[in-house]
Amino acid sequence: MPSLVRRLFSEWLGTAFLLAAVVGSGIMAERLAGGNVALALLCNTLPTGAILVVLILIFGPLSGAHFNPAVTLAFAWRGELPWLIAAGYIAAQIVGAIVGVWAAHLMFELPVWQFSVTSRAGGGQWFAEAVATFGLLLTIFGCAARTPTALPFAVGLYITSAYWFTASTSFANPAVTIARSLSDTFAGIAPSGVIAFIAAQLTGTAAAVMIGKWLWVSEGCHPELR
Amino acid sequence: MPSLVRRLFSEWLGTAFLLAAVVGSGIMAERLAGGNVALALLCNTLPTGAILVVLILIFGPLSGAHFNPAVTLAFAWRGELPWLIAAGYIAAQIVGAIVGVWAAHLMFELPVWQFSVTSRAGGGQWFAEAVATFGLLLTIFGCAARTPTALPFAVGLYITSAYWFTASTSFANPAVTIARSLSDTFAGIAPSGVIAFIAAQLTGTAAAVMIGKWLWVSEGCHPELR
Amino acid sequence: MPSLVRRLFSEWLGTAFLLAAVVGSGIMAERLAGGNVALALLCNTLPTGAILVVLILIFGPLSGAHFNPAVTLAFAWRGELPWLIAAGYIAAQIVGAIVGVWAAHLMFELPVWQFSVTSRAGGGQWFAEAVATFGLLLTIFGCAARTPTALPFAVGLYITSAYWFTASTSFANPAVTIARSLSDTFAGIAPSGVIAFIAAQLTGTAAAVMIGKWLWVSEGCHPELR
Amino acid sequence: MPSLVRRLFSEWLGTAFLLAAVVGSGIMAERLAGGNVALALLCNTLPTGAILVVLILIFGPLSGAHFNPAVTLAFAWRGELPWLIAAGYIAAQIVGAIVGVWAAHLMFELPVWQFSVTSRAGGGQWFAEAVATFGLLLTIFGCAARTPTALPFAVGLYITSAYWFTASTSFANPAVTIARSLSDTFAGIAPSGVIAFIAAQLTGTAAAVMIGKWLWVSEGCHPELR
Repeated sequence: MPSLVRRLFSEWLGTAFLLAAVVGSGIMAERLAGGNVALALLCNTLPTGAILVVLILIFGPLSGAHFNPAVTLAFAWRGELPWLIAAGYIAAQIVGAIVGVWAAHLMFELPVWQFSVTSRAGGGQWFAEAVATFGLLLTIFGCAARTPTALPFAVGLYITSAYWFTASTSFANPAVTIARSLSDTFAGIAPSGVIAFIAAQLTGTAAAVMIGKWLWVSEGCHPELR
Repeated sequence: MPSLVRRLFSEWLGTAFLLAAVVGSGIMAERLAGGNVALALLCNTLPTGAILVVLILIFGPLSGAHFNPAVTLAFAWRGELPWLIAAGYIAAQIVGAIVGVWAAHLMFELPVWQFSVTSRAGGGQWFAEAVATFGLLLTIFGCAARTPTALPFAVGLYITSAYWFTASTSFANPAVTIARSLSDTFAGIAPSGVIAFIAAQLTGTAAAVMIGKWLWVSEGCHPELR
Repeated sequence: MPSLVRRLFSEWLGTAFLLAAVVGSGIMAERLAGGNVALALLCNTLPTGAILVVLILIFGPLSGAHFNPAVTLAFAWRGELPWLIAAGYIAAQIVGAIVGVWAAHLMFELPVWQFSVTSRAGGGQWFAEAVATFGLLLTIFGCAARTPTALPFAVGLYITSAYWFTASTSFANPAVTIARSLSDTFAGIAPSGVIAFIAAQLTGTAAAVMIGKWLWVSEGCHPELR
Repeated sequence: MPSLVRRLFSEWLGTAFLLAAVVGSGIMAERLAGGNVALALLCNTLPTGAILVVLILIFGPLSGAHFNPAVTLAFAWRGELPWLIAAGYIAAQIVGAIVGVWAAHLMFELPVWQFSVTSRAGGGQWFAEAVATFGLLLTIFGCAARTPTALPFAVGLYITSAYWFTASTSFANPAVTIARSLSDTFAGIAPSGVIAFIAAQLTGTAAAVMIGKWLWVSEGCHPELR
């Protein structure tokens, strides 16, 4: 087991890279897409899914590669992560996410400190966030239980898909949601929408923990964390 | 072997997610593509192929991850699934597919209850559906026989390809066909076209069962279900 | 070892599906792309790469999944396939390729019997075909020697790349070249250009056999055919 | 261990194919994209990521498949490659990269000898190059330590992502940077910008060597080179 400081550093750096990829590719895509939003979203989707595979491959063996407070809470709830360490993970994820957004701004020579004005709200989007997070957690639980070596690819592919089939483009991650409120670019979300998104995500998390436990864990198969 | 209720639930939930992805990404893609149908279809294709990989990875060890009455019938015909359980699978798939379509409508704040008016018919499309289903079944039989760990990826890639090389965009699945008749969006099919599509799919299924048996099973290699 | 008839059938059916995918996705892509050739080529590339992975996964254990006279000649030259069987493979590939093109025409309700009028010729394109085939063969030899389970994915990814980095869009296959001369659609090549393309492909094949032997086989590692 | 001449040849040929793919697909993409830069960059990105997977799969077992002086320097610095051999690798990479660019020009019937006039400079781009190279090296170190069979896919996916999330489109490779200054096409960089890009890349390399050592190597896990 890697030392705690290395695990926290992994969560911090991995989440930073994730957000740099989400926000950075959104900026690049929107700049180049000439107003075609589907093309811009496609060029935001593929880099996000691809970097997720990479980050889970390299940081998974160190920290589990959560990069997501919903994932960390789920594993704590399942009793597979002590609550104190979970709190450290979540803090590292949120700080890392914000640093990643700022790094994207620096790379594209934009003001570091921004707030999004893109309103994302409404029943459809909240239901979408619950569905998106529910599916993400089931992906993680299912792969962890039976096909752990495929997990990094499964998460990348899940997000690639969920960007398109959820009305919210699938944030599915409270740290991502907070950090994206600090970027007035393609991937941004106005701060006023953050709390409701996180509430929806945690609802999906709770549902996934219960159903995932019944589907895979109660089988007598209690996998260790990757 | 997971309990029957868990297997049926897996078929139901997996098919629901599949249809939410097919219909949801179709809605998102068409809304954003600015009238370019190739771009819309690409942004419908990639999420569909990606979610298939994920769903087969996580539900495969539970139910076999058929999500498709043609697949279930084929395994029953091959004697690898009792007919009674096959009937339960098919019911779960059809109900799940419809629930998935409705979930997509809810996420995108569209009326839940719809019928498609997109006419899909004609000899070319029926031949295409037979070819598409034939190829899908061969993909499953071939991988199950020799490269089972690659099966989830193979099915996702097959559908990614078949969306484009078949004139019908490759439904290749009776439950999907029925459910897509209930969505007047990008991925819809008018109800009047459903029966002929399903007949074509079952023709392709029959051909694949026969040829698949000769190609792989008669080799003396009778693989267990994944 | 599967019986010879099953091996020849695998080469025939696999090549038919390959060409149906190449030509069919080209027709679909061009119809929908609204005149944007890059988008059309992208929607022709991804289905081609994807179906190659699938076909090699399922037919590889039966026939080796050559689907390509250049590959078959290379293995015969290396002494890994008797010349008589190689001749049978090549015949099956050419017939299969033509049947696949015709199947695509039938699916899209086009005349079955066509000749392309798309001129593809010139030193740049011939050099490109030699490079494309050289790289394809090295991909196959290198993976067969050291990473055989990745071979299906490597070939799919190689062709996905080579469509774009070669001026000829990388036919790299004499059977494909012959068959595509029989389709006056996006993927076609005028019959007058076929012989020079095949000559270039065989030049690349010869170079790859020599260099591949030195790089991998002379290492003392003579892998069996997959 | 393959002979040194075979290792150097692998670095030379692999880097040549990499650059032919980067520059060739850039030419093809720009020619066909009708002025849509996002589409052109997407059609430059996917072939680049795809060929990287292939080249690392086939040349990895021979030379380690660096194709990149930053990678070679990093392994020398870590004590896993003698400095003299590292110098040979770097020479082979630079010569190979230039040959690859020229091969792309020949395939597309452009003048072989060119200099780019595309200015790429500024603090944002230099920071982006440091980030891009830092991430690339961490990808390699992390996979080499724990998930070596996934390394070829991880590098391909990382570059697919980094093309979009870095303001510089992620050269992340001194040999690539030098060679792309010799092509006045889509992927070019004016020679005046080369030195600063390389300096930024080496800064990222140094950071990655230090952090990578702490994260993975000091764990008591000193993996052999693939």
